[in-house]
Amino acid sequence: MLTFVGLGLHDEADITLKGLRAVREADVVFAEFYTSRLAGTTLERLEAALGRRIRVLTREDVEKRAEEVILREAREKKVVLLCGGDPMAATTHIDLRLRAIDMGIETRVIHAPSIYSAAPGICGLQSYKFGKSATIAPPYRGRIPETPYDTIMLNRKHGLHTLLLLDVSMTIREGIELLLGIEAQKRRRGEATCNIGRIPFVGIARAGAEKPIVRADLPAALKEYDFGEPPHTLVAVGDLHFVEKEALMRLAGAPPEILGP
Amino acid sequence: MLTFVGLGLHDEADITLKGLRAVREADVVFAEFYTSRLAGTTLERLEAALGRRIRVLTREDVEKRAEEVILREAREKKVVLLCGGDPMAATTHIDLRLRAIDMGIETRVIHAPSIYSAAPGICGLQSYKFGKSATIAPPYRGRIPETPYDTIMLNRKHGLHTLLLLDVSMTIREGIELLLGIEAQKRRRGEATCNIGRIPFVGIARAGAEKPIVRADLPAALKEYDFGEPPHTLVAVGDLHFVEKEALMRLAGAPPEILGP
Repeated sequence: MLTFVGLGLHDEADITLKGLRAVREADVVFAEFYTSRLAGTTLERLEAALGRRIRVLTREDVEKRAEEVILREAREKKVVLLCGGDPMAATTHIDLRLRAIDMGIETRVIHAPSIYSAAPGICGLQSYKFGKSATIAPPYRGRIPETPYDTIMLNRKHGLHTLLLLDVSMTIREGIELLLGIEAQKRRRGEATCNIGRIPFVGIARAGAEKPIVRADLPAALKEYDFGEPPHTLVAVGDLHFVEKEALMRLAGAPPEILGP
Repeated sequence: MLTFVGLGLHDEADITLKGLRAVREADVVFAEFYTSRLAGTTLERLEAALGRRIRVLTREDVEKRAEEVILREAREKKVVLLCGGDPMAATTHIDLRLRAIDMGIETRVIHAPSIYSAAPGICGLQSYKFGKSATIAPPYRGRIPETPYDTIMLNRKHGLHTLLLLDVSMTIREGIELLLGIEAQKRRRGEATCNIGRIPFVGIARAGAEKPIVRADLPAALKEYDFGEPPHTLVAVGDLHFVEKEALMRLAGAPPEILGP
């Protein structure tokens, strides 16, 4: 039996009671932190809270050596794989689950809080007004991948907000600079842009912490703001309902003049 | 202090350790179940698991009488409001939080598993390939609200999947019949349709339960399938990556011929 257990957003107390029970009943407890990290805890505190020793796996263990490291054990024993957020948000876990099923291993998923559902509420924006999400990634072979920018353009065309996940250690400042860099790439090619400097963004630092930092402003101001340590998340704002405007002002200190009439 | 605590998806064990701690430390514990219900438990079992008496609030208590019922208490005491899913997914809770802030009451949010993040993983579909979500609602003044249908059309135009939430007690069968009804409305007006009968859908019953039922098929077949008791959720499928096709076949029993070449 292979049980995927989500650790949630921030620290050792974001696992559910159901997740804790699965960990306590397991014969072997693995964790991986390369798809998502818990910023508010350490392995030692996690082991103490869960009352179990945890073996931390590398990306290679999960993606290349899954059969020897994880699946062989799961054939005979109750194996738990812990990971940040909701366990099935990462493609690599879906992949591992399918391999387990192919080998006749029973699988189970124990959900946990995820940035996908938490971020809209943290900003006070309405979940059903979010379009497709995207990840801002660092330059690759001298070019910045343009998907996040194109996603913002597509969503805004339909009045929708965009959740932008950042690479594990990327800051809001770096994320914004990459978006501005994509705009410059597009301008050099003579392509249409959405004038990213005029779009309100919300920056969220350490979602799930006791006091996450949430700040809404235009990119130029937001990238100078001190959000502290990652993980950081960005939201590009689309059309705003008046309750959403209120929320951005009260929950995220948005200057009213950036939110339009 | 007003703390919003999510109860997660299904039963009394879907709250996080952090949520449980907030409940145990509270002076007053309220819950509301009209925005979302926990199908896998009862009030008695919830009270036993949390070790506290819970006062269940009506929609009127939360939306019309919040000041007397909740906020007055929260001025002086530690008040917890429990609700299904992630607490900030419902607009009414964002509204209540803003009112509390206006009255100078400190607020806090403790996240929990949500159908928004759980549903993609349950089907084995990739989170970032979901567009805007929508809710299927019953007919109003003789006409079925068309937003969910229009949302599917918009998302599919861009190859994206659509999460369709159903009214608290609505079944997958009813949801599909309403979508077919919207298509008939549109045809009578001579408008473009997306031929909903040819789109693969995934039905999910009781997300978060030990064994949720997950089934992918065309609408005509899916609406005859026995999903058991609500809550039910639907996903309208967009373009599929080959890993997603594999996942729909293994995790949701999709007949391969409906998934395209």
